[in-house]
Amino acid sequence: MAYTLGDLARVAHATLRGDEKAEIEGVAPLNKASAREVAYCASPRYRALIPGSAAGALILQACDADLFAGNVLLCADPRTAFARIASVLYPPEKVAPDRHPSAVIHADASVAPDVAVGAQAVIEAGAILESGVVVGPGAIIGERCVIGSGTRIEARVVIMHDCVIGKNCVISPGAVIGGEGFGYVREPDGRWLKVPQLGRVVIGDDVDIGANTTIDRGALGDTVIGDGVKLDNLIQIAHNVKIGDHTAMAGCVGIAGSAVIGKRCLIAGGAGIVGHITVGDDVEVTAMSFLKGSVEGPGRFSSSLPATSADAWARNVGRFRHLDELARRLRRAEQTIKQILSGGKR
Amino acid sequence: MAYTLGDLARVAHATLRGDEKAEIEGVAPLNKASAREVAYCASPRYRALIPGSAAGALILQACDADLFAGNVLLCADPRTAFARIASVLYPPEKVAPDRHPSAVIHADASVAPDVAVGAQAVIEAGAILESGVVVGPGAIIGERCVIGSGTRIEARVVIMHDCVIGKNCVISPGAVIGGEGFGYVREPDGRWLKVPQLGRVVIGDDVDIGANTTIDRGALGDTVIGDGVKLDNLIQIAHNVKIGDHTAMAGCVGIAGSAVIGKRCLIAGGAGIVGHITVGDDVEVTAMSFLKGSVEGPGRFSSSLPATSADAWARNVGRFRHLDELARRLRRAEQTIKQILSGGKR
Amino acid sequence: MAYTLGDLARVAHATLRGDEKAEIEGVAPLNKASAREVAYCASPRYRALIPGSAAGALILQACDADLFAGNVLLCADPRTAFARIASVLYPPEKVAPDRHPSAVIHADASVAPDVAVGAQAVIEAGAILESGVVVGPGAIIGERCVIGSGTRIEARVVIMHDCVIGKNCVISPGAVIGGEGFGYVREPDGRWLKVPQLGRVVIGDDVDIGANTTIDRGALGDTVIGDGVKLDNLIQIAHNVKIGDHTAMAGCVGIAGSAVIGKRCLIAGGAGIVGHITVGDDVEVTAMSFLKGSVEGPGRFSSSLPATSADAWARNVGRFRHLDELARRLRRAEQTIKQILSGGKR
Repeated sequence: MAYTLGDLARVAHATLRGDEKAEIEGVAPLNKASAREVAYCASPRYRALIPGSAAGALILQACDADLFAGNVLLCADPRTAFARIASVLYPPEKVAPDRHPSAVIHADASVAPDVAVGAQAVIEAGAILESGVVVGPGAIIGERCVIGSGTRIEARVVIMHDCVIGKNCVISPGAVIGGEGFGYVREPDGRWLKVPQLGRVVIGDDVDIGANTTIDRGALGDTVIGDGVKLDNLIQIAHNVKIGDHTAMAGCVGIAGSAVIGKRCLIAGGAGIVGHITVGDDVEVTAMSFLKGSVEGPGRFSSSLPATSADAWARNVGRFRHLDELARRLRRAEQTIKQILSGGKR
Repeated sequence: MAYTLGDLARVAHATLRGDEKAEIEGVAPLNKASAREVAYCASPRYRALIPGSAAGALILQACDADLFAGNVLLCADPRTAFARIASVLYPPEKVAPDRHPSAVIHADASVAPDVAVGAQAVIEAGAILESGVVVGPGAIIGERCVIGSGTRIEARVVIMHDCVIGKNCVISPGAVIGGEGFGYVREPDGRWLKVPQLGRVVIGDDVDIGANTTIDRGALGDTVIGDGVKLDNLIQIAHNVKIGDHTAMAGCVGIAGSAVIGKRCLIAGGAGIVGHITVGDDVEVTAMSFLKGSVEGPGRFSSSLPATSADAWARNVGRFRHLDELARRLRRAEQTIKQILSGGKR
Repeated sequence: MAYTLGDLARVAHATLRGDEKAEIEGVAPLNKASAREVAYCASPRYRALIPGSAAGALILQACDADLFAGNVLLCADPRTAFARIASVLYPPEKVAPDRHPSAVIHADASVAPDVAVGAQAVIEAGAILESGVVVGPGAIIGERCVIGSGTRIEARVVIMHDCVIGKNCVISPGAVIGGEGFGYVREPDGRWLKVPQLGRVVIGDDVDIGANTTIDRGALGDTVIGDGVKLDNLIQIAHNVKIGDHTAMAGCVGIAGSAVIGKRCLIAGGAGIVGHITVGDDVEVTAMSFLKGSVEGPGRFSSSLPATSADAWARNVGRFRHLDELARRLRRAEQTIKQILSGGKR
């Protein structure tokens, strides 16, 4: 469906320079957009592509506006404006509320009339699926789960018994919600005695969970994911973790048991957070860093080392393995210098 | 089902102070337990909650016993005692040995009469499922696999052809057992020639495998997981790895091909172990550490750096990149000092 | 099927010392091979097993050839020769082009006559499956996907709508191709606004993707995986990443959005690569390293630290946290020494 540039300027909170009646029906990259498409430039890297763009309109910052002869949507943050416009031009696809005949829906499940259920899906006894829920092919909704209205459970997701998912969430393919927590005590002979995992996973509204991400159920009490949390792919959330509202985590992050993460935190890819610690609101952890103790927010924390040439790296690593000794030698050198200066040693 | 405190004291190897006839039917956290529930305290952090607890009994160490006026189960290790009691109060749910009509069970599979098979599951030709096995919805058991008695295969697990799983294991949702190992040789032009992966995965008894964890089949010979091994979620075990009995690994660990891990090891979250090395018994590897060479046990090994404020971190990283140079400068300074002291330089 | 040693010598580009008519029908490890099997030795570690091997032939380097009295296939690189021979002796199993009656194949999908479809699989509308494709049990092929001839989609793989997979690929169990990219912009109040993910995943020919690996679809434009790329298990490839031909990545690697990786690169296990950077051809990144900036190839890059005894490690880490200060102290000591030498300070 097409929108006029005037409409899109309002959606994007942008100032239009040009034809407010021009019709736009899609978005595209700067160098590929055509007359009925809009593109954006948010980085000096791509500025050179502005003058030659064939786009029907460009979303630009003021500093770039003069580079383009055509229609311009002027704003302070082109990427956000672009996101707003793209959201309007590409609304989430409406899924017809069909239930594929191959799906297995237990007679004791409570499924709203407009829920869509894909092929080979399974909905177990006692599950409650509210209005507008979409269950993808092969997804499995366990006994007594509650899935809030408008939530999309994608292909092959597993939600284990008794978990609660809020409204308007998206759970990406292969994610596992509510697997057993990793809880054991060790017997004197080294064997592991399992601690029953009796809690649930409780997920708020507007939460996105990435592909093949795993969130374990609580041991005693629940694992809790706040509203608006966004988790990328292949993330591990252990039992009894709490994640505050609007926190985002990139791929391959691991959070150990009972960690409490604040609101609006940013945990970059590959980072690890140990168990039983508290992370304040608005904390940022950089990629591949290892947060080992509680921290207050706001603040930015890091422990990752950027790669260099392997040869230079090996030399520095060799030195690192003697760093304590090196520090002691420096201390001795400083003391000797002091004695020389005081005349106490010659 | 309710137990008396007297019974639970015996189960927990604890000394009862109080009413041995009191009935307990569940467990709960210290601050939520009611008169028919038991709670525990194993950490000074939660000691303040002891006096006000409404629990029917508390599991406490001797040093905390006087803080509580009610029934007390006294023991040296409250968490272990709690685990024993919870295991009795919450035995694994009995699954009725039903086979869902949507499951596909090959006529040439050998499935014991009391095996339960969930909706949409697939059991291929030649598979052998012993007594009491539970196959979750959507799980796939490949050709000629053997699943030992009492083992639970959860939703959407894949076990590829010819793999062997022992008795009383739990394979969590989404795990993949027996995928092809990552074995290639490189042609001079950079192309990769696949090495056929001809082995199996052979898993012992009482093994737990976490959600979305992957264990590859051997190239020549098998990948072998010993008895009592516990693997958390999102772990990667490459081809021909051997893991000794009762070793435990936390989430996001990666073990490269042909590594041999000893018994009773503890591999913490996010750690990586390179291929073709040998790790002795009772070795501990700390979280996010990188074990690059063989080590003997017992011992504790680490290479992870804890995060600090990103600004301070950046300064130290900058120095690290010149650590070899810094060490050389220190050596020169030491030599100059020596010469000064010997009067050889002024 | 058996081959003569003469045939296998030709396959392996090896020189035969022995009976060219001897028949071989399998491969086995050095110490287990029997008269109709071939084994290889590529490492001094296993040389001691050569003289006692009962193999029908051994694949050896010249330096080891005299250790064995039987038939020898002489070559410079026994592992590659072994791979060639094993590929001939163990060709990929032919799968009968059956379509299991439980599979759901949409009437509007275009499926070549010789395609095999496993139990409980789902093929959505508009999907195109070329000749010889094998779809494993429980796999899901989304709307309008194209799967090239000879490609094997294993159990429980998900390929989301509109993705394109080349010829002769192997997608291992549980992999998710084409999940939504992790794209958001942040509102001033901390909420996340989703950026529609409008691209696809486009995968070349001869690509292998490991178990539970995830590859996200592009935001604008596509995520692109070149020909001959080999990805191990539990790898995360974010939206709009490009990976050049014949690059290989080991388990647990994470590649952030819009990174461009060159041809023939080797990314070892657990490494992380940040977004929006360019990695040249023939770049190697060592295990658990963190590549944070663009690099040109060829070259080898590292930032991982090998584990040592945890006590020694802790002392060095303690020093590392003061490395900047230590470097400043060294600078001061050097200056003082200089002043002493120049007579300017006593």
